[in-house]
Amino acid sequence: MVVELISVGTELLLGNITNTNASYLAKMCAGLGISMYYQSCVGDNEKRMEEVFSTALLRCDIVILSGGLGPTKDDITKEVAAKVMDMPLEENTHTKKRIQEYFNKKDSNKSNSVIADSNWKQALVPKDAIILDNNNGTAPGLILEKNNKIMILLPGPPNELVPMFENQVSPYLRKLNPQVIYSNMVKVCGIGESRAEDMILDLIQNQTNPTIAPYAKTGEVHFRVTAMAKTIEEAKSMIEPVVFKIKERFGKKVYTTEEDVTLEDSIVSLLNTKKLTLGTGESCTGGGLSAKLVNVSGVSQVFYGGVVTYSNEAKMKWLKVSSKTLDTYGAVSEETAREMAKGACKVTGSDVGIGITGIAGPDGGTKKKPVGLVYIACHFKEHTKVKEFYFNGNREKVREQAIVQALILLRNCILE
Amino acid sequence: MVVELISVGTELLLGNITNTNASYLAKMCAGLGISMYYQSCVGDNEKRMEEVFSTALLRCDIVILSGGLGPTKDDITKEVAAKVMDMPLEENTHTKKRIQEYFNKKDSNKSNSVIADSNWKQALVPKDAIILDNNNGTAPGLILEKNNKIMILLPGPPNELVPMFENQVSPYLRKLNPQVIYSNMVKVCGIGESRAEDMILDLIQNQTNPTIAPYAKTGEVHFRVTAMAKTIEEAKSMIEPVVFKIKERFGKKVYTTEEDVTLEDSIVSLLNTKKLTLGTGESCTGGGLSAKLVNVSGVSQVFYGGVVTYSNEAKMKWLKVSSKTLDTYGAVSEETAREMAKGACKVTGSDVGIGITGIAGPDGGTKKKPVGLVYIACHFKEHTKVKEFYFNGNREKVREQAIVQALILLRNCILE
Repeated sequence: MVVELISVGTELLLGNITNTNASYLAKMCAGLGISMYYQSCVGDNEKRMEEVFSTALLRCDIVILSGGLGPTKDDITKEVAAKVMDMPLEENTHTKKRIQEYFNKKDSNKSNSVIADSNWKQALVPKDAIILDNNNGTAPGLILEKNNKIMILLPGPPNELVPMFENQVSPYLRKLNPQVIYSNMVKVCGIGESRAEDMILDLIQNQTNPTIAPYAKTGEVHFRVTAMAKTIEEAKSMIEPVVFKIKERFGKKVYTTEEDVTLEDSIVSLLNTKKLTLGTGESCTGGGLSAKLVNVSGVSQVFYGGVVTYSNEAKMKWLKVSSKTLDTYGAVSEETAREMAKGACKVTGSDVGIGITGIAGPDGGTKKKPVGLVYIACHFKEHTKVKEFYFNGNREKVREQAIVQALILLRNCILE
Repeated sequence: MVVELISVGTELLLGNITNTNASYLAKMCAGLGISMYYQSCVGDNEKRMEEVFSTALLRCDIVILSGGLGPTKDDITKEVAAKVMDMPLEENTHTKKRIQEYFNKKDSNKSNSVIADSNWKQALVPKDAIILDNNNGTAPGLILEKNNKIMILLPGPPNELVPMFENQVSPYLRKLNPQVIYSNMVKVCGIGESRAEDMILDLIQNQTNPTIAPYAKTGEVHFRVTAMAKTIEEAKSMIEPVVFKIKERFGKKVYTTEEDVTLEDSIVSLLNTKKLTLGTGESCTGGGLSAKLVNVSGVSQVFYGGVVTYSNEAKMKWLKVSSKTLDTYGAVSEETAREMAKGACKVTGSDVGIGITGIAGPDGGTKKKPVGLVYIACHFKEHTKVKEFYFNGNREKVREQAIVQALILLRNCILE
């Protein structure tokens, strides 16, 4: 079974809003095991809508439309859908009653005491349509079935669309599709995308069901393993050996197989498990590393605090970097990073310390020390490991990569 | 001139990511005065891509493609575009050299010492294509021109697509469109969107050319004033009186009229002008405020450093918050914020100090001190101003709002 998504609304074509409905609906359909090959957006224009709707009906089984069900003159999704499905509009008593009720309720807020005439247009419904009651607005959703084709019309506002899909459309689609889709994520850190893909190319090339899809993130690669089966259990048992093989290939580079777990989540729980505490000393990342760690709820067990030492004075005062080191090697050097990591450990009384110093740009680079040069040090159990990086990209990109590489170095030091 | 947008990537059809590229590109095209009637998404499938590309070429002048330019086997946007435009691929020396350079730089990180074969595929370019260098990744962008039709191919990652569009595609499109569109941005902070809109409703309602478009940001509202004219000078002179009126209405709340200037930029230059230095003491924001400030190039003149005091011990040790205050009022209190701001001033030897403490959630809230409660203090010239906030949203959203409100409080304290 194949579904296609059409979002209606000129505001999308003007870029006034981001189409979160499309990603939501796509994710829900994927979860229901329904394939999707196309999505489109079209403005509130009858001719163009008719063209897009008709094309979609030719190449799929189910068309999901969102937007354009409101009361204004611009809103013509229902009218165009009724036309292409050849199902004439007629007044629907149930819907009319619900609109009246909705406004009675709103009336008590005294803002909308008269029902605008335009609202009654929403009580017109294509003959034989299934009506999806809208508990969060006036426009009902609709399901039109004819000649083995289905059109599902949903209101545009996400707070109306989402509950309507979850409570009414999802059960409807589940009945149509006996197949179940299930997926697992294998998240790998400290390796580039093409390198990572090369390492499991044979698995990727031989894939049919389950499939393996790689996604590149800064410093990470995520592999989604997806299986289609009759039951969740069957899908899970199909996925298991594939996930096992991927984990085998990447070894310790795999930090999680859970969808929602981020690299910083995994590191915070690693610190928790090993009963280790962490302190940070940051220069060019300016607190970005600690901010990332603090995004993990429950980090307070392992993170005492950190210091942002943007100036040399602060590096000396807070992290006890010696003035000799700063004079001899400079603020951006292996030696300074080393002393920063040690200092971060000491000043916070933590088990592990991280020091980051570098040139994020756009200014401050020299031939010997170009923009993008970053030293990251991790001090743990009397040893300090320092890594040198030359990052590409603008200031923000350099800092983003430095933060992720600091997390990876930290993880490696604890695991070793 | 009509443009059409096509986003390529199976991850969009699976709902794994939200298509922010589409809203960005749509907004930019609208700003350039180019009409858009359709947008589509298609997976990494040759036949379907060919169909969608060809349809788009029939109904518009310019097709902008995003995604599918990477090194993996899945990435075939360039190949399909070259086919529908009938422009054979050939190796491009310039691009090959740039890829080599990119990896040379990366190589020094020693993690990626071999360039995977797949990366060389990115050096193949359709004959006579205009090449858009990518400073933030390996995949170059491309402009294909033939038979009065244009295809523009952009990489999918937003941090590569956005700078490439801004620096290379936007000037290219501007040349094609004989009408000049010019816009100015009036950025206002410390006021809600509907309140801000109400204050200039008469100006917005009477707009035709120039137009005024409001954009809500966290803690800020941006008004884009856009004029269409024959020359830049004419457009500028049309915009000037409108910008003047908006500035008059909002007074000191306007922090810039420049497109690229962020709130943190304006604050750093304010500190520079007034020859003031700043120190930060952060708890719930975990270094997010200092990281935001450090994103401003040249911040080192005014920012000595900051401390992230996630634990009570760190608050006492580094910011000299008294244990009595912590015991009596708690870590999240007006009094603690006040002492943190003072401490941040003192410990960094700065003129201005900021202290932030709050409950970002999801845990840690109580009936009296719910999740979202944040105290922000600013100490300047012997006075400490503290503000109490109850923010909505999840952990990340609470922290984001706290950081912006800290910047606004800081700005107000310096300006007063």
